[in-house]
Amino acid sequence: MKAVTLTGGRLDLADLPTPRPGPGQLLLKVVRCGICGSDLHARHHADELADVLELCGYPRYLRSHESVVLGHELYGEVVDRGPATAGRIKPGTPVVAIPLVRRDRQVDGIGLSADAPGGYAEYVVVQEALALPVPTGLGPDLAALTEPVAVAWHAVARAEMTRKDVAIVLGCGPVGLAVIAVLKARGVATVVASDLSAGRRSLATRCGADIVVDPATESPWDACADRGFVTAMPSEYNAGIDALEGMARLPLGRWAAWRLLDRIGATRPKRPVVFECVGVTGMIDSLVAAAPLHSRIVVVGVCMGADAFRPALAVNKELDLRFVVGYSPLEFRDSLHALADGTLEVSPIVTGRVGLSAVATAFTALAKPGTHAKILIDPSIDTDQIIATARP
Amino acid sequence: MKAVTLTGGRLDLADLPTPRPGPGQLLLKVVRCGICGSDLHARHHADELADVLELCGYPRYLRSHESVVLGHELYGEVVDRGPATAGRIKPGTPVVAIPLVRRDRQVDGIGLSADAPGGYAEYVVVQEALALPVPTGLGPDLAALTEPVAVAWHAVARAEMTRKDVAIVLGCGPVGLAVIAVLKARGVATVVASDLSAGRRSLATRCGADIVVDPATESPWDACADRGFVTAMPSEYNAGIDALEGMARLPLGRWAAWRLLDRIGATRPKRPVVFECVGVTGMIDSLVAAAPLHSRIVVVGVCMGADAFRPALAVNKELDLRFVVGYSPLEFRDSLHALADGTLEVSPIVTGRVGLSAVATAFTALAKPGTHAKILIDPSIDTDQIIATARP
Repeated sequence: MKAVTLTGGRLDLADLPTPRPGPGQLLLKVVRCGICGSDLHARHHADELADVLELCGYPRYLRSHESVVLGHELYGEVVDRGPATAGRIKPGTPVVAIPLVRRDRQVDGIGLSADAPGGYAEYVVVQEALALPVPTGLGPDLAALTEPVAVAWHAVARAEMTRKDVAIVLGCGPVGLAVIAVLKARGVATVVASDLSAGRRSLATRCGADIVVDPATESPWDACADRGFVTAMPSEYNAGIDALEGMARLPLGRWAAWRLLDRIGATRPKRPVVFECVGVTGMIDSLVAAAPLHSRIVVVGVCMGADAFRPALAVNKELDLRFVVGYSPLEFRDSLHALADGTLEVSPIVTGRVGLSAVATAFTALAKPGTHAKILIDPSIDTDQIIATARP
Repeated sequence: MKAVTLTGGRLDLADLPTPRPGPGQLLLKVVRCGICGSDLHARHHADELADVLELCGYPRYLRSHESVVLGHELYGEVVDRGPATAGRIKPGTPVVAIPLVRRDRQVDGIGLSADAPGGYAEYVVVQEALALPVPTGLGPDLAALTEPVAVAWHAVARAEMTRKDVAIVLGCGPVGLAVIAVLKARGVATVVASDLSAGRRSLATRCGADIVVDPATESPWDACADRGFVTAMPSEYNAGIDALEGMARLPLGRWAAWRLLDRIGATRPKRPVVFECVGVTGMIDSLVAAAPLHSRIVVVGVCMGADAFRPALAVNKELDLRFVVGYSPLEFRDSLHALADGTLEVSPIVTGRVGLSAVATAFTALAKPGTHAKILIDPSIDTDQIIATARP
């Protein structure tokens, strides 16, 4: 079969043996495979990430000296089944799959390990137990977004927001855009988006962001300065003392009064929820310095290497830093479900399609933010160009 | 009145004018005032912390060139009331108070600003609206712990634990010990405590810790290795795939099966809740490296300056870092209530009492961990020695 290999930073179109599904596995004919930002990163910085994953107990992440087939945002049709499969998913069924396979008890990330070739190919092996049939009517471009949408879905779940909360999304790459769409689908009233690229700001608007700012000229914090967030300790203390002094005039015992004030939220802070989807060095420290008191910061962007910040500042601001990667099986399922029922405004994220021969061209285009967000590989495409997706 | 002043790192017994309560304020005769770890820190590093608080919008934190009276863990008897007080708290009433005062709209931390002299003195001014009468029967040593216990109470609330969760408390200074006591009072079944000092480990046991380790010889992570926490990605993935393959054999639709698995928690991780009560440089990075996947880390210890850690490791482990500092009025009230009804096993925390003339001696003793945890100032004491509290 045709496949794209990554070897020492070089992407090559190669002819590889078609993989065979093992016990409990399915062979898919790839219909679409998304190019993920982490694939771009893996091209030049695989060893750094491999070191981190080794510390997490996974020593088999791809390394730069290995030859691997990338691709973990998978959508394809079942063409064969290995032994010991449950057999409920029939050949011909279109499926998406959580990108993990295992042989014996050895688990590998599909497209992220030399031992588990990914979807930059005509065929890919997935785990039957991790595959979900795609509902009728969901087109291939959207179905292929299930995996990155699940990442966003999980990030939003980890943020534990209410609809009244204000969300600030920093960075409008594919994951930032998916976070915006998930927030709006889940009814969050105000979503502020920030990106240096005009093209990505326009995509943010199309994905549903209510306020979109260019951080070079306007701060996302200023854009929601009227939302009652506390940026200075004394204003919080004054509000608290005002409330408590007001209560002292009522014929209530002090203890009852304090409980009542807490119940109505007078002595509890309003907090923005921030999604950090940029992932560059220094981002966390600048966020810790700029965020209002009590901000909840969900860190989705991956910054490699050591990064310094000021813990005393985070402590005195009572910040939350919630780091996220991945998703649960149910979150993956719910993402597919939301895509199928049309709840999610994510179609603007897909900006192009390429065949296997143009993957390197797509990587180059994606490295320049502004032109593209998500490019999908469609192995049936036979040109060397990126086919831009139609915009409304 | 007699008071202890801090000037350029020097503690002096001085004779100062007795402060006068302004509008909405009470004058207290100090019965006890705790010496806080942040007071020790302020003695030599005030300017660093002042810089941090200035970034939080509070520019009036004490600086090294100023002369200030420290002390914000306040317990005293009302001896006078300023104008415009509600008047419900009568002279003679013993009270504790949230350590903030304001004049006009200017809020200051008591004992943390040159404009708001603290409780290292015979008298101190507090805000009437922030004062709470101490229930009859609660002794002065325990009542004086209300403020640090409120810090611990708030830290535990921010951790959002269930009783079944395992808590790991790193550092058994006064705040770590109070966290242990609050965790046990709130029914958390397993509390692991870790401290390099044998004396503090013994106090941790007396405050209710179930497992106490010396991190020089045993890791707190090993001490709860049998609790099902995930330390390596593949074991989590294997468990998930096992569960999903098992479900595939049941006569259930795949979507229903995945929801069911999520409900019963088979695809949701077990996480320890870690309380970081040490606050030294490098602690966060070593925690990020050592903690199991999905750990929730509540950072109570304050580390000054910039501190480096590896965000990519925090992301791939899906860690939570929740930074905490104060408490809400209700949490302060609930802490006093819990102290009064005997729920909290915190009496071991108080290891000594001193008069105003021996505050410098107490600071020296507290700087050597192992001998003392909390020393309370009692202005009625007239010796130059630390009076050790009786141990059972």
